[in-house]
Amino acid sequence: MIKTFLATDLTIDTGVQELLLKARDEEIETAFDRARQQEPRCKFGLAGVCCRRCMMGPCRISFSDKGAKRGVCGATADQIVARNLLTLIVDGAAPHVEHAREVAQTLLEVAEGKAPYEIKGKDKLMKIAQGLGLTLDGKSMNEVAEEVALIALQDFQKQSGVANWLSLRAHDKSVETWGKLNILPRNAHLEIANAINKAAMGCDSDPLNLLLGIMTMALVEGYDGLHLSTDLSDVLFGTPKLVKAQYNMGVIKEDYVNIAVHGHIPMVSEKVVEWSRKLNGEAKTLGAKGINVIGICCSANELLMRQGVSVATNFASQELAIVTGALEAMVVDAQCIMPGLQKVAECYHTELISTLPMIKIEGSSHVEFTPANADKMGEEIVRKALGRYTERDLVKLQIPKGTVDAYAGFSVEQIIELLSKINQEDPLQPFIQALTDGDILGVVAIVGCTNPRLKQDWANTEVAKELLKHNVLIVTTGCSAHSLGKNGLLSPDGIEYCGPQLANVLKTIGVANGLPSLPPAWHMGSCVDNSRVDDLLVALANRVGVGVRDLPVAGSSPEPQSPKVLSIGTFFIAQGVDVHIGLNAPISGSPFVDNALTADKGDFAVTTDELFGGKLIYEEDPIKAAHLLIQRIIKKRKALGLQSPDLEF
Amino acid sequence: MIKTFLATDLTIDTGVQELLLKARDEEIETAFDRARQQEPRCKFGLAGVCCRRCMMGPCRISFSDKGAKRGVCGATADQIVARNLLTLIVDGAAPHVEHAREVAQTLLEVAEGKAPYEIKGKDKLMKIAQGLGLTLDGKSMNEVAEEVALIALQDFQKQSGVANWLSLRAHDKSVETWGKLNILPRNAHLEIANAINKAAMGCDSDPLNLLLGIMTMALVEGYDGLHLSTDLSDVLFGTPKLVKAQYNMGVIKEDYVNIAVHGHIPMVSEKVVEWSRKLNGEAKTLGAKGINVIGICCSANELLMRQGVSVATNFASQELAIVTGALEAMVVDAQCIMPGLQKVAECYHTELISTLPMIKIEGSSHVEFTPANADKMGEEIVRKALGRYTERDLVKLQIPKGTVDAYAGFSVEQIIELLSKINQEDPLQPFIQALTDGDILGVVAIVGCTNPRLKQDWANTEVAKELLKHNVLIVTTGCSAHSLGKNGLLSPDGIEYCGPQLANVLKTIGVANGLPSLPPAWHMGSCVDNSRVDDLLVALANRVGVGVRDLPVAGSSPEPQSPKVLSIGTFFIAQGVDVHIGLNAPISGSPFVDNALTADKGDFAVTTDELFGGKLIYEEDPIKAAHLLIQRIIKKRKALGLQSPDLEF
Repeated sequence: MIKTFLATDLTIDTGVQELLLKARDEEIETAFDRARQQEPRCKFGLAGVCCRRCMMGPCRISFSDKGAKRGVCGATADQIVARNLLTLIVDGAAPHVEHAREVAQTLLEVAEGKAPYEIKGKDKLMKIAQGLGLTLDGKSMNEVAEEVALIALQDFQKQSGVANWLSLRAHDKSVETWGKLNILPRNAHLEIANAINKAAMGCDSDPLNLLLGIMTMALVEGYDGLHLSTDLSDVLFGTPKLVKAQYNMGVIKEDYVNIAVHGHIPMVSEKVVEWSRKLNGEAKTLGAKGINVIGICCSANELLMRQGVSVATNFASQELAIVTGALEAMVVDAQCIMPGLQKVAECYHTELISTLPMIKIEGSSHVEFTPANADKMGEEIVRKALGRYTERDLVKLQIPKGTVDAYAGFSVEQIIELLSKINQEDPLQPFIQALTDGDILGVVAIVGCTNPRLKQDWANTEVAKELLKHNVLIVTTGCSAHSLGKNGLLSPDGIEYCGPQLANVLKTIGVANGLPSLPPAWHMGSCVDNSRVDDLLVALANRVGVGVRDLPVAGSSPEPQSPKVLSIGTFFIAQGVDVHIGLNAPISGSPFVDNALTADKGDFAVTTDELFGGKLIYEEDPIKAAHLLIQRIIKKRKALGLQSPDLEF
Repeated sequence: MIKTFLATDLTIDTGVQELLLKARDEEIETAFDRARQQEPRCKFGLAGVCCRRCMMGPCRISFSDKGAKRGVCGATADQIVARNLLTLIVDGAAPHVEHAREVAQTLLEVAEGKAPYEIKGKDKLMKIAQGLGLTLDGKSMNEVAEEVALIALQDFQKQSGVANWLSLRAHDKSVETWGKLNILPRNAHLEIANAINKAAMGCDSDPLNLLLGIMTMALVEGYDGLHLSTDLSDVLFGTPKLVKAQYNMGVIKEDYVNIAVHGHIPMVSEKVVEWSRKLNGEAKTLGAKGINVIGICCSANELLMRQGVSVATNFASQELAIVTGALEAMVVDAQCIMPGLQKVAECYHTELISTLPMIKIEGSSHVEFTPANADKMGEEIVRKALGRYTERDLVKLQIPKGTVDAYAGFSVEQIIELLSKINQEDPLQPFIQALTDGDILGVVAIVGCTNPRLKQDWANTEVAKELLKHNVLIVTTGCSAHSLGKNGLLSPDGIEYCGPQLANVLKTIGVANGLPSLPPAWHMGSCVDNSRVDDLLVALANRVGVGVRDLPVAGSSPEPQSPKVLSIGTFFIAQGVDVHIGLNAPISGSPFVDNALTADKGDFAVTTDELFGGKLIYEEDPIKAAHLLIQRIIKKRKALGLQSPDLEF
């Protein structure tokens, strides 16, 4: 346990601070402790110049002039870093791809009458079917759903051509760029296998060819990870609409049976909510007021958007939710699930329950999800939680007080509906007018994680506030959205942080929709819902008649921890969108890779800025990062001939 | 350059020793130098307890009591090692899987008349088609080939069921074991993606579930990597038959245009041979005697077996073939291609030529292979080599003298044909009789690599000789086969190393086939041709009426470098075959993983010895390793009720 760090240095979340002190009193180790135990970190690993791909190594490229400049096979720092970055990006994309595949498989089984879910997003289904070129005449909804699911599953099977979901969702100008570079993916699994193949010992050792492989993987992430997941989740569970809920540890309720859902796959979390409602009465027979489902990480986002479920906390502090002593169960599925959760759960009455066949946790319970047995799973999980309620140790019970209101549900469909109250004929027009006039200087997506190496929520909120001050609208997803939610930026009250022009725009749209204002940060969903950010950009680009790369927009992940940040980030870079990260990717050991990703067009032989129009910006200081993003936005505004302030930072 | 090591400490190959001295004189760095520059190696990497899967790390599990026992996410050493081993085995399997897919794709295009190859293995095609349950009546060979290719490609597409090639090739008893453990693969790419997914941050953290994932990947390697590659290569290029050729650097000929083929994919190397023959006359117009194609690594094995092409050297000394100054071109495709080759080639007139779209080498030439343009590729490569001949620097020319005769081509079909000269009705009977009587004590496959960390060829040959002395028959593949070939063990003369009983068996079969003896080590092909070893075991098990796990056989990789050794090794362990490695896999940091793989049945809660009947044996000393293998073989003999010597080592 950390004795030497102040809890206020570890997080700006006062509830988490309180629980960190409780954890220390109870001698419970958390990720915040372990992050300090790993100091000093391996400098070879941080720079990306360590290779363990064969048994000639491990090899390291030395930082000293006299040391080894090549691995045993002869690989240079450029080659090693490029291979490592490729597989790190595969590590980011593969989980999203499997997420998408599982949703597609579920949709197929639902359409075939084999799985107990309802198709709630009929409109979305029909739009997707039309986009895929299907004829709908005379077909039942299930028939259309089956066809759509099978076309989706082709994106894990087709041996040639271009992935269907890329063709469905990508901007024409982007596709043209990618086609010229020969980086269009065929199917997600084939490209994942090929990326592993490229990076394997004695295979691809051309840093440029590896960089192009990274961009192929970025497109796999974007279309067969993000877009496919979001689209088919909307078909199954409905497209999010504006919804109000609460944030912070205080959403855990002392007098309820509390179930935390944590992970990503909505098929699991939706069934937990459904069965919590069905069995709510049984909680009352135990003396509780009912069952209270709360969310963590992206399962939180999925349920927040569609079910109005409140959010307890985000990635870095997931273990602390258990330290409240008030969770009867934590249900997890895939991704971002700390193995450390089980050790913490064992100190309380909390049952940690894994659900996916291929993802288990040493020591935890396991209730298996398959689409067909989803109801059985849901019921069994909720009954396990009910069974734990009477085992609570009241001495260990301590829930930090206070919650914050937040709005979520900003799907593109919802955004257009909100804007249509200003201009029904051409809803995007007022938005584009505000962009043109500089009332909205630009749009930045604040996305990604919190990371126990960094002060939790701090950089996420500081970047956002500095951008808002300069009239940059924020859209947000993932655990970063939770940071903003906890700190009031998903509430209309948050417009106090906006420059006057942006505040005015938000008020105007808000008032037209019966709110005092829209919040300054629009919560667009989970990490896979960065697809929604992309949809918004494509819609804006199409409306204006430019490419995505021309828009005055950017992305920022101030507190990244997951490689998903890098796979999502490179997807946006592939479209020509600049992406900021607040902690560096392991690329500093390679001049080629570092320059290719971070340098400006023309500065080096190969840069993504030149090839795609977007680049990676690494800056730990959130205020400086915001200023760098604003400078890039202004550059793009000027290229479009839009008036722009002359800002000197 | 290494000044402080004797060349005789680095390799037992005198030709390589000579070239190492030449390289030093010319200040050329090779893998042998770089292997020493990487000392001391990172102890965390060697033990497998370093994790770089997210940006909370890099994390390391400390070896001291006071240091970190968990990564930031909470992962233990067991979890980290298991995840790392899983992805290392994916690194081994994925290249073979892509090899197989490319052969299948080529066969499809050949069948469709789109690619310029002939189907030389019509018998094999028909047997495979029958095995797959196809009806052949009235179908043309191309129609059958198309159906077979499409069924093969399903193994990269099917979303449920069991991989077709597993069903075709696996022993029933093995399938039963795997079915009970729920580890049967669906399709190769799906399982590769899932393995990556399991190992990703915040996903699978149950070491047992990860171990089962490793075994699924082992089956992917075995059936959709090894077997599929071999089967369809035999269909395209013919099933190997007994062939005699030469070994050692001396096969490079001073007065010829020399082209080295290096890598694995026979579609590339076969076309180089074909065009070398077609353009042989052009070499003569340049003053050369003709074009001489020589092999390195597994491309060598593919061509040796089917075209009688001689072998210059194996993995560790690939760069030194260029140091002869006599190679006009080195043509590479995939796997085991040292990036360091290009730097060496730049010191000579040699043109290094990469061929696969996804595998390039910084600085090298690239002539792209696709099935359709294979002829164009072959011609262009050979013309490039011709063009380099006149650029030779005679001052730098030095080819070590001397070659060794060797026999190869021991496909199972060939073995059965050889044995049929003893018993035409029941060819396996004399082999089984010899096994039963103890004239053949057991069979060990010596497979895998050479590794510049180790004295080249030494452990491969020492293990083989010690086993032969005790009447253990050797079958061999890969670069290990080259070690044995260079040292006379692929020649009938090699029976001097055999115990009298084994020598007698080999003479008997040899004489019946017009040879003084069979060689003591039977060269069965390339690394993917470990499938042939497996076919032999399945044939023996079926003939005897036992499981593969019951046979007195084992595998040994005394000088492993590639993760393919681990993926192939776990495939054999999954069948209940013990596997020795002479350099440890990065598992020592995990008590769970280390024990699960290396301990005996019953010693720990989970061991592969208990689950499958086979285990991993780690021993660096080749003599001790041979004795451990013999002890395990005797144990299996006794379990079968076979008489066995009481050997005390």
